This record gives sequence, C-alpha cells and structure tokens, in this order.
Amino acid sequence: MGPGIAERLLDDRRRSRLVTLARTDPGLVADELADPAPAIAAALAEAEVLLTCWGAPLLTSRVLAAAPRLRAVVHAAGSVKHHITEVCWQRGIAVASVASANALPVAEYTLAAILFANKRVLHAAHRHRALRAPHDWHRELSDAGNYGRTVGIIGASRIGRRLIALLRPFDLHVLLHDPYVDAAEAARLGAAPVPLDTLCAESGIVTVHAPQLPATHHMLGARELALMPDGATLINTARGSLIDETALLPELLTGRLNAVLDVTDPELPPPDSPLYDLPNVLLTPHIAGSLGGELHRLADRALDEVARFASGLPFADPVHPTDQDRSA
Amino acid sequence: MGPGIAERLLDDRRRSRLVTLARTDPGLVADELADPAPAIAAALAEAEVLLTCWGAPLLTSRVLAAAPRLRAVVHAAGSVKHHITEVCWQRGIAVASVASANALPVAEYTLAAILFANKRVLHAAHRHRALRAPHDWHRELSDAGNYGRTVGIIGASRIGRRLIALLRPFDLHVLLHDPYVDAAEAARLGAAPVPLDTLCAESGIVTVHAPQLPATHHMLGARELALMPDGATLINTARGSLIDETALLPELLTGRLNAVLDVTDPELPPPDSPLYDLPNVLLTPHIAGSLGGELHRLADRALDEVARFASGLPFADPVHPTDQDRSA
Repeated sequence: MGPGIAERLLDDRRRSRLVTLARTDPGLVADELADPAPAIAAALAEAEVLLTCWGAPLLTSRVLAAAPRLRAVVHAAGSVKHHITEVCWQRGIAVASVASANALPVAEYTLAAILFANKRVLHAAHRHRALRAPHDWHRELSDAGNYGRTVGIIGASRIGRRLIALLRPFDLHVLLHDPYVDAAEAARLGAAPVPLDTLCAESGIVTVHAPQLPATHHMLGARELALMPDGATLINTARGSLIDETALLPELLTGRLNAVLDVTDPELPPPDSPLYDLPNVLLTPHIAGSLGGELHRLADRALDEVARFASGLPFADPVHPTDQDRSA
Repeated sequence: MGPGIAERLLDDRRRSRLVTLARTDPGLVADELADPAPAIAAALAEAEVLLTCWGAPLLTSRVLAAAPRLRAVVHAAGSVKHHITEVCWQRGIAVASVASANALPVAEYTLAAILFANKRVLHAAHRHRALRAPHDWHRELSDAGNYGRTVGIIGASRIGRRLIALLRPFDLHVLLHDPYVDAAEAARLGAAPVPLDTLCAESGIVTVHAPQLPATHHMLGARELALMPDGATLINTARGSLIDETALLPELLTGRLNAVLDVTDPELPPPDSPLYDLPNVLLTPHIAGSLGGELHRLADRALDEVARFASGLPFADPVHPTDQDRSA
C-alpha cells in the first residue's frame, strides 16, 4: 500500500490481531514491488496472502513470478482495478475487497447532507449570521423540511444501495436511476425506478453515486441541471467528471440550485473558484470516503477476510474478474 | 391556534380531508377564546372537538362553559401544557397530541448534526475555503469519522428515543443519561445507561434532549463541560437554559469544544455574540422542530386522530394528565 497508509489503517489493536491470524511482520510494508528491498523480496517469496490498500503496487506478472506461493489478495479499500491485473485472475488468485465497508461513510455523509439540505440548515445558519435579528423563519423556510420530499439517486452502486437503505426511516420518496436495475430490483431496494430526466425534474435532491466511465462523463449537463426544480440541491460524492461544472456554476451563481460537492473537476478548484465562497454550496475536500477512524473499519473487515482465509473459508466479499467493468 | 399557523398547517389537500372527517368550517380559526367573535362563539357552542396547534388560547373554565358539547382536543403540535388546563381533565375531555410526530424532525436534524460533527465536515469545508491548496486531510482529520465513536444522549424524551432508533444503522456507541430510565429499558432502547458525568467524559458528541424544568436548568455547567474530551461537540436542540452559556463560551472560543446550537439563552443571541461567527459553532435559529412541509406531518397525524375519534376509536396518542410533569 502507499506510504503512510499502514500506520493509519492498523493501530496497535489491529496489528496485534493480524499477528494472531497470520505469520507476518506487520512492520514490513511495501509501497513498490518492481524492485523490492531484500526483506520485502524474501517475504514476497513466502507470502500466501497480500493485505493491500490504496496505492498498492500493480501486481504484474513479474511480481507474481516473485511470489510463487501467493493465493489471495485482501484489499482493505474499495476498487481493486488499480493493482489487480489480468495475470492475477489467470493464476486463480482469490481476491477480496472491503468495498462495501468503504461505501458506508460516503452513504452516511450523503444522508446527513440530504437531511440538512431538505431542512435548509446551512442556509438558515448563514442567514441567521447575517441578520442577527428577529425574523419569520417559518415564512422564509416554508418550503423546507424532511416530509414528503423527493430524493433522486443516480446509480445503484454499493453507496447508492446503502443510501437507499439508510433513507428508509424517513418520510421521503426515493427515485432511482440506474440502467442496470430493473423495476423488480428497484422495488426490492425501496426506490422507484425512473429515467434520468424524470429523476432530475422531480427531485428536490439529486445525488450522484455512479462510477466514472466514458458513459457517465458529464452525465449531468446543462440540460439535466435545467430540469431540476428551483431550490433543488445537487450532491456529488462520486467523481467531479460526472457533472459538467461549466453548466453547474451559473445555476449556483444565480442561487437557483444548491450543491454539496465533495468532489470537483479538477479535484482542487482553482483559488478563485466561486465554489469556495458561495453560501449555497458546501464544498469539502474529498473526505466523504473512509477517513480517520473509518480506516479502522476497513482494517477490521479486511482482517475478518484474512481470518476466513486462514480457516479455509471462502471470502465473505470476493471480487470476481467480471465485477470490474461497471464499477468505479 | 396562533395567527398565521392554520394556513401553514392545512394546505388545500388537508383542508379537504378535514371537511370529509367532520362538520366544520376550516376557514374559521380562533386565536383567542376569551372574548370570541360571534361566529367563533357559535361554533364553540356546538363543537365536539377542537383542533389546536401552537399559540392555542388557554382553555379556561369560562371557555369550557361556552363549549358545552366539547369532548376532545386534538393538538397538532407537541406539548399541551400551554392550553390544556386542570379544568379540561376534570371535565374528562380526551386530549391527543402529535408530539411523537413533532419529535421526528428534531431527531433528524440531530442525526445529521452528529454524522457531520463526527466526520468534521463543516470544519473541513471551512479550512478548505481558507487554504484553497493541496493539503493532507487524512492527517488533519486523523481522529474524524463515524466508526466506533461515542454519542451521549441526555434525556430519553420522544426525541431522545427516536434519535437512539435512528442511530442503529451506524457503527457508533450510544450512551444515555436519564434519571427515569432503568438499565433494562435502556438496553431495550439500545443505549448504555450512565451517570451524567460519565456521559460527558466518554462522549465525542453530547446531545441534549431533556425538558426545561427547574431541575434541568444549567444541567450542563462549567464542571460537566470541562469533563467533555478535547474536540467533542455539544448539540442543543432542546432549550437554551439547559446549558450554562457563560461556561460554554470560553470552551468554544479556545476551540477546545465545538457546538451545534439550534437554541440559545436568550433565544436570539445579541448581535455581538461570538456564537454567530465562530467556525466551530453551527448556530441555527430554532428550526430543528417542525418547519415548512413538516407541519403537514403534524396535520396528517392530527387528522388521523380526528378520524379515529369520529369512528369511535380511542386516540392513538392520548395525553394523560400525569404526562405533563416530566415533559417539555
């Protein structure tokens, strides 16, 4: 995994657990395997399982040749497409990922953003700060509230599905757009399946949970944004490229739409971007995913998979070669 | 009910439903009954049920004498202590309140505040706006996240109980302090019962859902606040008087604690109050309760009670005279 990640992923408690599960040196972390140090090379020659995370080096045929006993990779993060290669699948290496655990914090951030946006909490805080005087908030916020409003979810990804589940206790209508989900499955999930245009036109909140693919580039452009009702809020915790920001900015500058953006395109907006300053935009620096103590959840679930492997059980969340085409 | 409330409570759809449930003129709304206009007096003389909301006039013995057929009051809001008098109970008038529906938005606001506070979302947004440059957010937010953290709930009120239920899908520990809840009931609710000092000392979030009573005045004072861990967040959606703000302010000014305050003491802070400007304080103008479209939920549940009464069924949520001592 990348430099500095192991320290955040594995605290003393998780490190101790790892040592009870496998013969390993938890201090031995490789961030590259193309030209490994002797201790890494020696460990690789014996390793049956690799525990990987963000920034893991690509498992090329050369790396695999240096790891003759390798039978499994447990990835303590989401997508495995940056390090698992075709050769891994050909060699029959079992791969597990804790992508479902990594989906939870994003769904949780989004849930909180929805509840606050429907209620116009940050708007009220901003206006309260400006006014500092008695004011008829019931009048100003007469359209606000989390009752009977519609939330449109784009993408029944792990995050999208978790979000639908988290929205169940609330009195909100949930629309779902996902070309791979049919009506029966949408009903099982608890959402009404709709075309993208309908979703945009009928939702007070539109939240994007689609993967970054050629087909999803700028999937929300000027036309789709124009369909959104006045006062609606767009939430993006996925990838900046899914939204045409050039089309979004005017809608935010006029105040017609609001946004919660954890990702942008480019990922760091230029210092003079209005996104930093607009009162109707909550801009965060790509933190919705696993962060801080949430890395311990990834470690806990990854160590669960190591324990299953050590006991001869199949992985709870295996990754299959065909899973990768449609995922982020 | 008070002036202007009926229009917000009953839109055309709810008004139409009311007319199907009872013989009534939904345009006839009284905000005082001490010296009623002739049309109001005539209606009162015939009324079997009063539909009340915030600002309802006190139902004195004189009012009751003018309402000889009155058998029930359905209150489309929370507490009935501002209009239901001892004489009402003595006369055996059945009282229903939609306090449980009114609790939902407060619990929802608090849930969102907890998820954002644990993740330090508003802090990250504020710092991102200030920096506008690449930054190691994983390092800065290494203690953040909604995994394994502790939330302390003061008061197993309707709001407190709903909040405990809403917190179930998350990987958080829930502590509860309520002198009227024993260990068995706390376990049923899904929270660990603890003394107030333990709750303050062990919770990364402390959220107050206690009623305003002499015994709860300044229940969080300098001593309790000092027990809270560095970086903890205090949430108050109940009443400003529960917290000693003179003791809280220094903790906020140094940045040791954070706060989400929907209520303050006085309710409108003076224009020079630091609460408006501190980046570690989210100050909102008493909006956590039913607002905007959420008033339609109160109307829907109140009309359900009117329908039950009309069918000869008991109220789903009756209020008893003894309920009032411990509630807000």
